[in-house]
This record gives sequence, C-alpha cells and structure tokens, in this order.
Amino acid sequence: MGEITLVIHGGAGTILRSKMNPDMEAAYRKSLQAALDRGYQLLASGATATEAVVAAVRVLEDDILFNAGKGAVFNRAGRQEMDAALMEGKELRAGAVASIHNVRNPIELARLVMTRSEHVLLMGEGALEFARMQEMKMEPDDYFFSQQRYDQWKKLQGTHQTAMDHNDEDPAKKMGTVGAVACDGNGNLAAATSTGGMTNKAFGRIGDTPLIGAGTYANNKTCAISCTGHGEPFIRAVTAYDVSCLMEYRGLSLKEAMHFVVHDKLLKIEGEGGMIGVDAQGNGEMIFNSEGMYRGIKSSRGQNEIGIYRS
Amino acid sequence: MGEITLVIHGGAGTILRSKMNPDMEAAYRKSLQAALDRGYQLLASGATATEAVVAAVRVLEDDILFNAGKGAVFNRAGRQEMDAALMEGKELRAGAVASIHNVRNPIELARLVMTRSEHVLLMGEGALEFARMQEMKMEPDDYFFSQQRYDQWKKLQGTHQTAMDHNDEDPAKKMGTVGAVACDGNGNLAAATSTGGMTNKAFGRIGDTPLIGAGTYANNKTCAISCTGHGEPFIRAVTAYDVSCLMEYRGLSLKEAMHFVVHDKLLKIEGEGGMIGVDAQGNGEMIFNSEGMYRGIKSSRGQNEIGIYRS
Repeated sequence: MGEITLVIHGGAGTILRSKMNPDMEAAYRKSLQAALDRGYQLLASGATATEAVVAAVRVLEDDILFNAGKGAVFNRAGRQEMDAALMEGKELRAGAVASIHNVRNPIELARLVMTRSEHVLLMGEGALEFARMQEMKMEPDDYFFSQQRYDQWKKLQGTHQTAMDHNDEDPAKKMGTVGAVACDGNGNLAAATSTGGMTNKAFGRIGDTPLIGAGTYANNKTCAISCTGHGEPFIRAVTAYDVSCLMEYRGLSLKEAMHFVVHDKLLKIEGEGGMIGVDAQGNGEMIFNSEGMYRGIKSSRGQNEIGIYRS
Repeated sequence: MGEITLVIHGGAGTILRSKMNPDMEAAYRKSLQAALDRGYQLLASGATATEAVVAAVRVLEDDILFNAGKGAVFNRAGRQEMDAALMEGKELRAGAVASIHNVRNPIELARLVMTRSEHVLLMGEGALEFARMQEMKMEPDDYFFSQQRYDQWKKLQGTHQTAMDHNDEDPAKKMGTVGAVACDGNGNLAAATSTGGMTNKAFGRIGDTPLIGAGTYANNKTCAISCTGHGEPFIRAVTAYDVSCLMEYRGLSLKEAMHFVVHDKLLKIEGEGGMIGVDAQGNGEMIFNSEGMYRGIKSSRGQNEIGIYRS
C-alpha cells in the first residue's frame, strides 16, 4: 500500500491573527481537526479517496463555523443557495450540484449525481427533484439559520455589494468554502468542494466550486485540487485543471504548479484565494495568496498540521 | 492589420448523407453561409472578434434549423432551457448563462453578464431577472415552438432516455449546439457557444456549453474554442481549455492540439462530438469524431467553405 494523505480547507480570505480571539481560534482548530481525523481514519482503514473526501467535507458541512451546508451564507434574496462538486481521478468521473437549498449535505448529492445519473452538473429545482428521488436527507430552513449569518447578510441587504464570506471585519464571521483532497493506498485521487457562496450574491450566481476544472478537479495522472476564493477569476483561469495541465504537459511538480497558479496566474486577474492539492505519490500542498486559509493536512508520512494564518 | 478568420458550427452528431434530402441540405448550407457572411463582414469592416462571434451566433439562434434560441429543443418538463457562453482572449473576460428561457438571444445575455455584471455565470430565474434589468429582448413561448421540435420531444416523453438532438434518424431533426470563434485584425480572439441542450434532458441539467474551459474558451496566447457534442464527457475532459494548455505548455499547433483532444482524449471517455478553433495567426480548424458536424470557415486567406458530413 502506498502513502495516504488527506488535505482539507475551510476557506481563504482576510483572516488576521490580530482580529481573532483565542476561543474562536480554538473552535476553528477543533473543527478542522475533527474533519481531518474523520477522513484520515477512513483512508487508514482502507477506504477510497472518494469516501475520505466526502466524509471530511460532510463534517465541515455539518459545522456552523464554515460556509457550506449548515453554515451557508444568505444570498441577495435572503436564502441559502449551496453548490458542491466531487471528482475521482481514476476514471475522471464527476458529479456536481449548483444552487440547491435544504439539502443537509450537498457533497452527498454531488456524489449521487456522479454515481446514479447520466449527468455531471444538475442545478436548482431539477437537482432538488433528483435529491428527493434519491431520498437525500433534507433539513428545514431552521437548520441552516444562524443569527450571526443572518446579521452578516442584513448588513449588506439592499445594496448590490457582495462580500466574500471570510472578508468581514469580524473573524467570527469569516467562514469559507470547504474542501478536501485525498490520495488513498491504491494511488487513487479524489477532490471535493462545497460552498454556500458569497453573502448577498445575486440570485442564480454560480461560482467556481461546482465547475469541474475551475474549483474542483482530480486525475490520477496528476493531482486532485480543491479551490477557495473569489470564484469569478478562478472560473476564468480554469484554475484546478490548470494545475493538472502544468504537471502533465510541462512536467512541474504539484508544489511548483500550485505555486505558479496561485501566486502568478491568479494574482494577474485579481484572483484572491487559495487551493489544496495532492498527487498520486501522496504529496500534499496548501497554497494561498490571501491573508489566511483555514487548512489541515494529515498523512502516512506523519504530517498532522492545522493552519489558519499566513505565518 | 493581421489575418482575419471566422469559424462557425451548428452542432455535431450522426449526420449521414444517405439520410439527408437535397432541400434540407440546401437549407442548412444557406443558413450556415448567412451566419458566416454576417460575422465575417463585421470582421472585414474592423469589428472586434467579440462582435463577430456574437453576430454569427445570433444568426444561428434566430434560425429554427439549429438547437439554440428559436430552435431550442424541449427538456423533460416540456420546456426549452437554453445555455450560452462568451469569452474574450485579450483579458480572459467571460460571461455565461444557464437554464434560461424566453430570451431571444442567449448569447447577448451572456455578453451582458460579461460586460455589466461582476459575475461570470448566472443561471435560471436569477439570470432572467438580470435579463429584465438589462431590457433584453424576450419572446413568448410561441416564438420558440415548432411542431417538429415538439414531436421530437413527444417521442421521448415519459421515458428517461435522452437524445442528442442531432442523433435522430431523421436528418431534418438533427440540429445542434451552435458556436463561433474568431480572430480579428488586431489578433484578438473570441469564442461564443449557444444551445438548447438535449431533447428530454432532465430539468436543471447543465452541459458543457456555458462552462468556461469545457465548451467555450478563448485566450489570445493560444486559441479560441467552441465545442459541440455530448456535454458530460466534454465537462470531465475540460475540453476547450485542454486544447489551450496543449498549445501553451506543450507547444502543439492548434490543429495538433484539437486533433489530439477530439480523436484521442475525448474518444477514451466516449466523448462524441467536435469543436471549432482559431489561433491568433488566423489559422482556423474544424475537427470532429462524429459522423458529421455542421460547420463553416471564412478567412482573409480566401477560405470560404461550408461542410456537413465527414467526407
């Protein structure tokens, strides 16, 4: 069995140590560690990369601290709209959902689109119809409501300004897209991303998260990538697949390719954010150009790290 | 001023000469030539690549023969849902819309998303709200209704089978995604794609057309690409951006890159269809792995060709 590695993120943005308090930081670290442990435990017991990334993302979706699932932000219409995507590196299978609501775990719905539909991307009411057919676990609006999220949205309501969920002044409100990438013992890769989008985003806006090649990509020949940041530049740069192409066509390592995309290509088009990646040898990387990124890595090489700030 | 080139497509699929009648073939040729002439005339008079591809796609959207705009197919709910995308190669600007209805020219709405919104991809009711704010030309359901399209859908209704619009036995019903790519006199590239999707597709399914990097991509450093075919493999292969990466990172020519993607990479994942492309030197290509592709090219080098079948 080869090396096993799990890398997770909980969003990138202006996360400053000076604005964080010890209790809040401890809460983030605890949540990130729980997701990391859950996914890694599965990998260690022989589960596939797909099972591990879905399990890790589920833990983050069920946590009010992060902008996905339970903690999703409000859009301009005062409602949560969530997106998620999953891709497997072995046969390039993929599933994604966009603009869904009331689904407890969007990443599970993305998995069912991949395994039980003939499509890759389903959106809106059609995706919800599919969710009901598949007997997905749904939750009432109350489940997703949090006073803090609501206040964050109310502050912006009535304007056309949007906020990256993690660029609020109060670090307690800086929650982001979540994601996980893994390499399992058979060298299979998988990537999963889930998000509630941007606070006050226009109804119907789709970011990079559910777009295969933009926010999420996996290919056993190269890497698995999950992105977080301002979605539009990530779409225009076809960010996740660009890392894969730099490795496959130009021979760059995972770290070199991710560094070039995050610190050169994305910055040129004002693409603030970051990404996590893993290759088929179990190398894992976490690279971002923002002030911070909630992140963690655990591997059979003994890595077990949680990070929040730039340094 | 450099070379100018316009390339268009009207969909790919099982288009057999033996099933076509002379009147139908003449109608397709006339429509393709009209779109080609319209876009090329603009380029020749100094218009930008963006203006040319939008104008050419508009002509095809207004034509009942093609599966876009007026001629869009019916989905499983008995309604037309249309997608479109536009990308400019100079600054990698892009705009796209998914699952919209009653908009006369979806490609114009994609252009307004690019130029007048902060987003790249808008879908469904949110995109329609944006369309109304921008005073887009809307049409009643009657405008989009055609008995032939309706009969095509009725044949499949009640089943979960889908049909590529151009894989019907009757060539008169074989209409496809439309697209255009152009190189203008300043070496700027643009790509535009518009579609009504697949007959009887699940409500809310999004294909490759509106996804930047999958069905549509443009970058002045490499190429502009518009794809047509079975959307899901095109999404999983990040098809349009893959051509660009093979050119930028591996040094392949436009033709070599398109050939490799269409005849090798796509075929390995059962990706039936094709694409049109242009590079910044004004080279244009039309490559497909299906029985046929409605297509045309016109350039300052004297090319002026319309094609339908493989040979």
